[in-house]
Amino acid sequence: MDGWLRLLKQKDKRTIARLITKIEDGSPEKNQLLEKIFPETGKTFLIGLTGPPGAGKSSLIDGLITKIRQVGLSVGVIAVDPTSPFTGGAMLGDRVRMTKHALDTDVFIRSMGSRGNVGGLSRSTREAVRVLDAAGFDVVLIETVGVGQAELEIMHLADTVLLVLNPGAGDIVQVFKAGIMEIADLFVVNKADLSGANRLVTEIEELLDLQQWEWRPPIVQTIASLNQGISECWSQIIKHRQHLEETGEWVKRRQNHLRQEVLELLEDSFYQFLKQEMKKPEFEAELEQVALRRKVPHQVARIWLNRILFGKKE
Amino acid sequence: MDGWLRLLKQKDKRTIARLITKIEDGSPEKNQLLEKIFPETGKTFLIGLTGPPGAGKSSLIDGLITKIRQVGLSVGVIAVDPTSPFTGGAMLGDRVRMTKHALDTDVFIRSMGSRGNVGGLSRSTREAVRVLDAAGFDVVLIETVGVGQAELEIMHLADTVLLVLNPGAGDIVQVFKAGIMEIADLFVVNKADLSGANRLVTEIEELLDLQQWEWRPPIVQTIASLNQGISECWSQIIKHRQHLEETGEWVKRRQNHLRQEVLELLEDSFYQFLKQEMKKPEFEAELEQVALRRKVPHQVARIWLNRILFGKKE
Repeated sequence: MDGWLRLLKQKDKRTIARLITKIEDGSPEKNQLLEKIFPETGKTFLIGLTGPPGAGKSSLIDGLITKIRQVGLSVGVIAVDPTSPFTGGAMLGDRVRMTKHALDTDVFIRSMGSRGNVGGLSRSTREAVRVLDAAGFDVVLIETVGVGQAELEIMHLADTVLLVLNPGAGDIVQVFKAGIMEIADLFVVNKADLSGANRLVTEIEELLDLQQWEWRPPIVQTIASLNQGISECWSQIIKHRQHLEETGEWVKRRQNHLRQEVLELLEDSFYQFLKQEMKKPEFEAELEQVALRRKVPHQVARIWLNRILFGKKE
Repeated sequence: MDGWLRLLKQKDKRTIARLITKIEDGSPEKNQLLEKIFPETGKTFLIGLTGPPGAGKSSLIDGLITKIRQVGLSVGVIAVDPTSPFTGGAMLGDRVRMTKHALDTDVFIRSMGSRGNVGGLSRSTREAVRVLDAAGFDVVLIETVGVGQAELEIMHLADTVLLVLNPGAGDIVQVFKAGIMEIADLFVVNKADLSGANRLVTEIEELLDLQQWEWRPPIVQTIASLNQGISECWSQIIKHRQHLEETGEWVKRRQNHLRQEVLELLEDSFYQFLKQEMKKPEFEAELEQVALRRKVPHQVARIWLNRILFGKKE
C-alpha cells in the first residue's frame, strides 16, 4: 500500500486536505488517485443538508457533529458554496467549527467553492466525499447554501437529504416548485421557537398530503442554536437509513448514483472528443452556414451526431 | 408566414410571452418553433449584466431602458434568477419596471427562474433571447443575480458584459478569482456616492493593471437610483460594440456562441442516446462490478465510450 493511502486510512488530516486540494485543482494525477482509492469506498453514510441562507444549517451541523461523536461514529463535513466568492457565510461557520474540533481526529471539515470551475462543482464534491469515505469516516455531511440548480445536483449525491427551513424562509410553496420536494427525505424546521413555526409545519404537512409516499418525509422541529431537537433529528435520519435498507432502496439508490457518475464521465469524455471534432474544416463550414442563418443549429447538431455515432451522412 | 410569426415580428407582447412560456415549459413543439424563428435572428445587440445581490442592477437597468428608448431603440429584458425561488428580488424589480413600461410596445420585460430545470437555465435564456431577437428588439439586456456558475454560463451568451459592483460588495479580489475578470467588458461602480467608491475604483484599476488588454474594461461610476452616470455607461457600451466590430471580434464572438450552442445540442442528444445505451443488460452487469468495487467508474466509462464511438471492444 502506498504511504499516502496508509496515512489517508489513518484519517491523517494533512493527507486528506492535500488530496482534496489536488482534486479541486484538477491535478494531472487526479484520476489515478481516485482510481486508487475507489476500492476503499462505499462504506460511508452520506447525508446532505440544504436550505435557504440563514436557515441555521451551520448550527444544526454543529449539533449533529457532537451527536454523531457521542454515539461513537466519526464524521466528515463538506460545506459547498456554489455562490462563492460573494457569500462568505459557509466559510466563516467552518472556521468556528474547525477550531472546536481541531484536535479530534474523528472530525474533518472542509469548504469548497466554485473556484470559477463552471459545472464541475458536484463532481468535485463527489470526489471529495470519496476521499473522506476512503479515509474511513462513518458519516459524511454535505452542506449547501441555497437551493439553486448546483445545490440540487449536489444533493443528488446523498443517501439521505435534509431540507432545513425556518419560519422566515418565505413562501413554502415555492420550495416545492423548485424540485426539492422530490429529494427531501426529512424536513427540519429550525428556529422552532420563532412565531410562525407551527404554521410552517402545517403548510409542509398540507403539501405532503398532496401525494402518496413510500417514505413520507417526517418534520423535525429544532432550535439548533440551543441544541434542542438534535437527538430527534439524528434518530429520524437513522430511521430513514433503516427504511432504505429494509426496502432495498439503499442498494438501488447507490447503484443509481454510480450509474449517474459513469454517465457523467462518459459525457465529459464525449465533450472532449466533440471539441476536437468541431475543429475540423467541414464543421467550420457548417457553422458558417448557421452564422449566415442558412441552416439552424438543431439541424447541424442532428447531422453531426448521426455522423459520429453511426457514420451516416445526410 | 405563420400568423404567430407575423404577430411576433410586430412585437405583440402576448405572442412573445406565450412563446417564452412554451420554451420554459419544454413544450413538444419547442424545437420546431425555435427552428422557425432562427432565420429571423442574429440582429439584436445582447448586453449581459451581472453582479452580487444589492449592487443596484435593477435601478441601472431601469435607467438603461429609458436611455435606450431615448435614442430611439427598442429593448427587451430577461431577468434570470438561478437561485429562485428563494430570492424574489428580481421578480419584484420587474414588476415595478413592467408597470412603468406597460404601454410601450418597444419594451418587453420577462423574468426567468430555474423552475427545477437543473442545468437548462442558460439554454432557456438563450432561447428566450432568440424570441426577442426574432421579434425585432434592437437591444436585449440579460440580468443575473450573483456570480455563481449558472450566472457565468448565462453571461457567456452576451456580446457585451457589464459587471455591476458597489462599495459594499466585499473583497474585490474574490470577484476576480471567480472567473469574472475574463468576461467583464465594462465595470460599473454603482452607488458611487457611498464612501469607499474611490477605493473600489482604485482596486479594480490595480487588478486590471496586472495584465495586458486588447480592450481594457473601462470603469463607469453611476448612481443609478438618481439616474446619474447612465449616459456615460451607455456610451461606453456603444464604444465596446464599436471595438468588437472594428477588430472583427464581433463576428468571432458570435461564431463562438453558435459553436457553443451546437456543441450543447450535440451533448444533449448524446446524453439521451447514452441513457438508452445504459439500459442494456451488458451495461448493468458492468455497473454491478463497479458497485462491488471490482471495477472503477473511470475504467467503465473509458471502455463504453470506445465501444460507442469506434466499436472497439477491450
